[in-house]
Amino acid sequence: MTQLTEPSDQRLAKGARARATIARRAAELASVEGLEGLSIGRLATDLGISKSGIATLFGTKEALQLAAVQAAREIFIERVVAKGLGTPRGAARVRDLIDRWFAHIDNPPFPGGCFRVATLTEFSSKPGAVRDAVVADHDDWLAFLAGEVRKAQAMGELVDLDPDLLVFELDAIVSAANIARQTGDSARVDAARTIANRLLSAAPDEAGPDGA
Amino acid sequence: MTQLTEPSDQRLAKGARARATIARRAAELASVEGLEGLSIGRLATDLGISKSGIATLFGTKEALQLAAVQAAREIFIERVVAKGLGTPRGAARVRDLIDRWFAHIDNPPFPGGCFRVATLTEFSSKPGAVRDAVVADHDDWLAFLAGEVRKAQAMGELVDLDPDLLVFELDAIVSAANIARQTGDSARVDAARTIANRLLSAAPDEAGPDGA
Repeated sequence: MTQLTEPSDQRLAKGARARATIARRAAELASVEGLEGLSIGRLATDLGISKSGIATLFGTKEALQLAAVQAAREIFIERVVAKGLGTPRGAARVRDLIDRWFAHIDNPPFPGGCFRVATLTEFSSKPGAVRDAVVADHDDWLAFLAGEVRKAQAMGELVDLDPDLLVFELDAIVSAANIARQTGDSARVDAARTIANRLLSAAPDEAGPDGA
Repeated sequence: MTQLTEPSDQRLAKGARARATIARRAAELASVEGLEGLSIGRLATDLGISKSGIATLFGTKEALQLAAVQAAREIFIERVVAKGLGTPRGAARVRDLIDRWFAHIDNPPFPGGCFRVATLTEFSSKPGAVRDAVVADHDDWLAFLAGEVRKAQAMGELVDLDPDLLVFELDAIVSAANIARQTGDSARVDAARTIANRLLSAAPDEAGPDGA
């Protein structure tokens, strides 16, 4: 008797690969069109997969959106966080993380630039699972970076500003640089780098009155 | 013979009022759903107008999107710029403009928060007339604010930082505060105010090495 179904482990692996491919493409499209602009029909056409195949793998549009958030998150972790952790802890690692963050928006993996900026803005006023996922990803990254700032400060290598304040400011600057980059405004991208360098290059004894 | 058409000046005034009402509602919807998410059908239902009436007044979806950008721009000018110009020029006016800017995002005229942040992000990777209008509005506001900073500096009332750099940084901070506000993160809204106050409160003789 002919075996009509594949062995289940092969089928699972194939399903996982298909999911990853679709989620990645969904993130690419969403970086330009937004996560709400994601169309299963468009995805199906782009990838040469049937619409029902995508529906079977993801179930709902929300599940597809969440998978796109996860795909973008993994790329950011790979390109910025994991590589940055290769640099010894302290001010050098913080600067390396910021350099990689700027490189990530200068040479983005997605055509619409930073996925986080795009989707955080898109979902900021839309409560639900997608917003929760995007906000959690954002919070995770800033908490990680603040932790690295604290280590560098404890080593006496970085100015003693409030780490959460410093990280909020860096995030604001890099996010603004991302928009400037996407609109072709290189002067503002340069401005962002100048400000980030200033924030990070102050010597530990140069903190102002709010540095305590 | 009964006059079937209204006199043309009345008709024009009525058309202008209808356009303004529709553009305003379009901006409200777009602040949450994005300008691409604007649906003429939804607008028609909300306002009790026929879809063909909206189509007659605006022609294309792009014209409607541009009218929404203009409507939001006028509200910002009224709430922030015009009121700020009532304060004597110098550091007081710059601080008043920044206070009004924060008040505008704290208590936004649209449910989705700052229209400029939402649409600048949405259209940053979509070249065309809408992106041009959104970018021009953004550039205008920052150029105006930089001009007020220059006046305050010339009066010796504000720290001698590069005005474009200072204004870029303030914009980044307020934009990040807008997202924080929309996601209910009051700690980051407070962080934004702290940073903005620090940027504006440095005395003219406190400029760092990059202040020249």
